[in-house]
Amino acid sequence: MLDSDEKISKISLFFEELAASVAEPALINFRRDIDVENKSAADFDPVTEADQNTERAVREKIRTHFPEHGIIGEEFGAENADSDYVWVIDPIDGTRAYISGLPTWGTLVGLTHKGRAVAGFMSQPYLGELFMGVPGGSYFARRGEKAMPIRVSNTELLAESKMMTTTPALFQGEARDRYFELERQVQLPRYGFDCYAYAMLAAGHIDLVVEPGLQSYDIVGLIALIEQAGGIVTTWDGERPEEGGNIIAAASASLHEAALNIINAGS
Amino acid sequence: MLDSDEKISKISLFFEELAASVAEPALINFRRDIDVENKSAADFDPVTEADQNTERAVREKIRTHFPEHGIIGEEFGAENADSDYVWVIDPIDGTRAYISGLPTWGTLVGLTHKGRAVAGFMSQPYLGELFMGVPGGSYFARRGEKAMPIRVSNTELLAESKMMTTTPALFQGEARDRYFELERQVQLPRYGFDCYAYAMLAAGHIDLVVEPGLQSYDIVGLIALIEQAGGIVTTWDGERPEEGGNIIAAASASLHEAALNIINAGS
Repeated sequence: MLDSDEKISKISLFFEELAASVAEPALINFRRDIDVENKSAADFDPVTEADQNTERAVREKIRTHFPEHGIIGEEFGAENADSDYVWVIDPIDGTRAYISGLPTWGTLVGLTHKGRAVAGFMSQPYLGELFMGVPGGSYFARRGEKAMPIRVSNTELLAESKMMTTTPALFQGEARDRYFELERQVQLPRYGFDCYAYAMLAAGHIDLVVEPGLQSYDIVGLIALIEQAGGIVTTWDGERPEEGGNIIAAASASLHEAALNIINAGS
Repeated sequence: MLDSDEKISKISLFFEELAASVAEPALINFRRDIDVENKSAADFDPVTEADQNTERAVREKIRTHFPEHGIIGEEFGAENADSDYVWVIDPIDGTRAYISGLPTWGTLVGLTHKGRAVAGFMSQPYLGELFMGVPGGSYFARRGEKAMPIRVSNTELLAESKMMTTTPALFQGEARDRYFELERQVQLPRYGFDCYAYAMLAAGHIDLVVEPGLQSYDIVGLIALIEQAGGIVTTWDGERPEEGGNIIAAASASLHEAALNIINAGS
């Protein structure tokens, strides 16, 4: 399926179509005043509703186009997961941003072939932004405009790098000390952006993302985006990131190595 | 000048016109690949260029419309600052977001009368978002659509509140311990959004913002936005916030008091 240019182009068109078609369910409760309608339903969770509606819509579209493929999603588990091709869905990554009105959450969809991520995207429907990686390159499209190629930065040195993590509170014990040591060595540390941080890395705006304890669906949609843009994404052990865990993404091999040396110091 | 409905309406129209007219200088280096053009100019600072161009454009527009008013800006200092009416400008608030490609910086413009903020706005031109406070109410406009009224949330309890600060690293010594105590008592702490956090507060999406060491121009443009949306913004001493310093903004008086009790504990 992924061998010819024609088929590659079909994937990116499918991504654009898929992202557009699931924008509405994802946005259903974003910046909406829930309190008013919610007085009789104390256990109503606005993000869960958006999460579930979005994942349902993504699954339906994938089933229609690729009926033999497997699907794994955050909300509804696995179906046909031993297929060669498996889609991995995080319908709303960044739920805390979502409930805080911040437009930096995203819908993540990744395609794996025999366990390895080969294509994927992050869509931010409030901004109309789509960041996608397909075999052959990574692209950014905004509000339906033509997709433009993106690449990671040329940054090689920690001292010149911009680094992001969602919050240092997620690092536990010695990992937190080592994280703060890494923070001291970069030019600019920055918190708070979930999947959006990886999109900024792929587009060359920042240079490093380090996060502990990700789920598989938190990262699979972003792997091809980073790799096809020229970046590197692995676990802190330097292994493939498809299963999640402690994750590092870097704009260059030298940054990746320098950051891992600090994060893994003494362990 | 601020006594009639007609004049109030004129202010909000002026804000919309002003925000639109300075979008271009603010966006000049946002998500632009500086490296390529910058090889022969090592000391070129992309944010400074955007900052200065934007402030120049804001000043020119204000001078044309209100020649007797004073102006104070981050980049070019004070002119006619003992006028009854003084405008306070932060052309790019959130410069670290700006250089990281994150669309959560803003252009802040506030109008003070005898030292007290009476109107102001935050504009995020990449998103086409304008959050403004004028005598009589606060409003949100997006991509030139009609401005809609916004209000703070109804949240009264710390345990139900969402709180933001740009980074806990800005809190020094005991203030950091007290900040983390406050963080433990809220429902959801969140980092990383500069002026955008105050806009989310005014629009009812989050409930509390606590930050140390702001400059006057970091907050003046946001005061009327918060107050006219029903919120409270003061220093940690409970004084008027126009001079900057340690700032707290809250959706309700009870949240404001509860948070200040923790932040000021023992001091």
